[in-house]
Amino acid sequence: MSIPVPPVPSFPDAPFTLTSVKGLRASGVRAGIKASGNPDVALLVSDAPMTCAGLFTQNHFAAPPVLLSRRHLASTAGLVRAIVINSGNANACTGVQGERDALEMCQRVAAAVGCPVEQVLVCSTGVIGVKLPMDKVRAGIDAAGAALSSDVEAGRRFLSAIMTTDAFPKEAGVRLGDATMAGVCKGAGMIQPDMATMLAFVATDVDVNADALRAGMARIAATSFNAVHVDSHTSTNDTFLLLTTRKVPAPADWEQQLEPVARRLAWLIARDGEGATKVTTVRVLGASSDAVAKIIARHVAASALVRTALFGNDPNWGRFVSQVGNARSVRSVAGLRCALQGVTVFEHDAPTAFDRAALSAAMRAENLELVIALAEGEGEAMLMTSDLGYRYVEVNAEYTT
Amino acid sequence: MSIPVPPVPSFPDAPFTLTSVKGLRASGVRAGIKASGNPDVALLVSDAPMTCAGLFTQNHFAAPPVLLSRRHLASTAGLVRAIVINSGNANACTGVQGERDALEMCQRVAAAVGCPVEQVLVCSTGVIGVKLPMDKVRAGIDAAGAALSSDVEAGRRFLSAIMTTDAFPKEAGVRLGDATMAGVCKGAGMIQPDMATMLAFVATDVDVNADALRAGMARIAATSFNAVHVDSHTSTNDTFLLLTTRKVPAPADWEQQLEPVARRLAWLIARDGEGATKVTTVRVLGASSDAVAKIIARHVAASALVRTALFGNDPNWGRFVSQVGNARSVRSVAGLRCALQGVTVFEHDAPTAFDRAALSAAMRAENLELVIALAEGEGEAMLMTSDLGYRYVEVNAEYTT
Repeated sequence: MSIPVPPVPSFPDAPFTLTSVKGLRASGVRAGIKASGNPDVALLVSDAPMTCAGLFTQNHFAAPPVLLSRRHLASTAGLVRAIVINSGNANACTGVQGERDALEMCQRVAAAVGCPVEQVLVCSTGVIGVKLPMDKVRAGIDAAGAALSSDVEAGRRFLSAIMTTDAFPKEAGVRLGDATMAGVCKGAGMIQPDMATMLAFVATDVDVNADALRAGMARIAATSFNAVHVDSHTSTNDTFLLLTTRKVPAPADWEQQLEPVARRLAWLIARDGEGATKVTTVRVLGASSDAVAKIIARHVAASALVRTALFGNDPNWGRFVSQVGNARSVRSVAGLRCALQGVTVFEHDAPTAFDRAALSAAMRAENLELVIALAEGEGEAMLMTSDLGYRYVEVNAEYTT
Repeated sequence: MSIPVPPVPSFPDAPFTLTSVKGLRASGVRAGIKASGNPDVALLVSDAPMTCAGLFTQNHFAAPPVLLSRRHLASTAGLVRAIVINSGNANACTGVQGERDALEMCQRVAAAVGCPVEQVLVCSTGVIGVKLPMDKVRAGIDAAGAALSSDVEAGRRFLSAIMTTDAFPKEAGVRLGDATMAGVCKGAGMIQPDMATMLAFVATDVDVNADALRAGMARIAATSFNAVHVDSHTSTNDTFLLLTTRKVPAPADWEQQLEPVARRLAWLIARDGEGATKVTTVRVLGASSDAVAKIIARHVAASALVRTALFGNDPNWGRFVSQVGNARSVRSVAGLRCALQGVTVFEHDAPTAFDRAALSAAMRAENLELVIALAEGEGEAMLMTSDLGYRYVEVNAEYTT
């Protein structure tokens, strides 16, 4: 039995970035927050208030910028004029001073743009537990305000200024008649479902109101940013903002058109999982419910044994199958089938006589698919996960020391 | 505030192994199941039926030897005359033939020893999904039967024949007046709470009946074999057997005396976690209940980011603290304190001004302690975990190919 593999969306001719959406200006500058001297303050400003939906980390230690942005979005019912981001410092676990600093960042932008402070959102990413160097941040905001531009390069500078350990920039977009959908994101480690150390900004111009945008965003996130797993960690600062200028009549299928943009961005995050060599799409079928399928998919993706086998191109079905057997939410493994790259490696309670060498060779792909099919019901889930190799250890063993 | 560190039991003058208990004979032979040619069939036989309590994997794919041993123990109400073990092949995911093979192993031993087949238990460990080479197993059992001896070397040969990827043999024991308590175990990977790819055999001669033995074993396992975490995987074959010849009057505190033996064995498993450089004892205090404390401890220990930081001697409190913040069972992180090697690194919602270099140096220890103290109640838990380094990836990326 072969299983259809959902194509990974790609946008080969995409010179898309946030400034691809008319009415948006962006900038990215070097404020000296990062010791490396790389760009670290980014600003996005629209000509008029945008409608915005936001999804934020559920970590108990949600950082001051997350708490403030959430509050601003709620108080304006989703009206946003500007977003300011600093990288190199997450302004997390920074107490009352951190709250003051996040607010001051918004105030400074509001004054420059000439809008209510509530229409400014703020994001921070980087080291946690260190107070922001506010002198540098202030100067950076001023420089970013002066550098705003609507050209593609400005969008790229914005993107470079939100990156931390990312190995490559991440952007995607589509144009549909008059409508544009474009996004950028950062994130390479501490990635897990329900958000991660990631910042994602997707902008469009389709005329959708705040309620419809929020509803659509929840569905879009379920198959994109909430379906990514790099390690079992969710950060203090994760933020996904979906913005629209509402200047173009919305196509009926705007949500279906936008979902691949978000999924492509999420795929890029998994692909850049620290030291990742590929993205494995884990698909669970036949579970007792979608929720159970998601638990099983996470359980499999979270296994270091599974992820090292993926790294090693090792069709070690025993690890995949026994990890399903460990999931408490599984009631029965009778009838379980496991397939790798479309090749069934386990069914009828036993491994199949597959060609191990050929399958190992087939696993040397950038996109790998692992299917776990139970026989308990109709529940399904999909998860994109990184593999775990030497480079992951290298990147993570000596991060702060 | 400093936190008392529970001492890791060690038994410096211990030449203890299973044959340290009078009435037990053991052997370990090379049957050719392992390609390496290392010993792979082990046998333990007692002069008279022992009383036995068993704890087995909860994996849905529990292997035929696990299912059979469980059945035998139940049918005899815990009477055991012999245990046969093969390494190199787990006889797991082997279907009906695997069940037949496990039974045949017991039958062959029963015939040799002259006891009911139900008084023989069987364990297998190694590659899963491959049928046992029964010709080799039969010859191995016969050879093991002929080689039985009560000397220390025979106990050591038994131990060497149950090992797979273990980097060193694992044994521990104590003598208390006339009573002896001695154990051996194997296990180095796929270790998680609620058992792992581990086989543990602890024998004694204290006169405890089956009910008391079972009750005591559950408590002993909670702080030993069920408190070990190497990766988020529980194997198909995990077995912990506690045996007694009942020849010596039981001291009132037999359970308290036996627990450190089991805990020492469990510590040795964590120490040998594939590529591990140390054992970190994660202690969670102040949780709303012991059960919640255990969930949090596992959640922290399961984080690849936490475990690479432990490997890198990196006092990266942000990873420890934010992982607690991810645990859904945590209600509030207000008042959370985090300490490494007795040094408080986070409290009052912020990191402390600890000496990072000095603490990193202190982390270069074989025993590391990470304390997470919440302010939600009286719940406590303890977990011993391996760190995650390059060698883990090396060992696990190319296991079967």
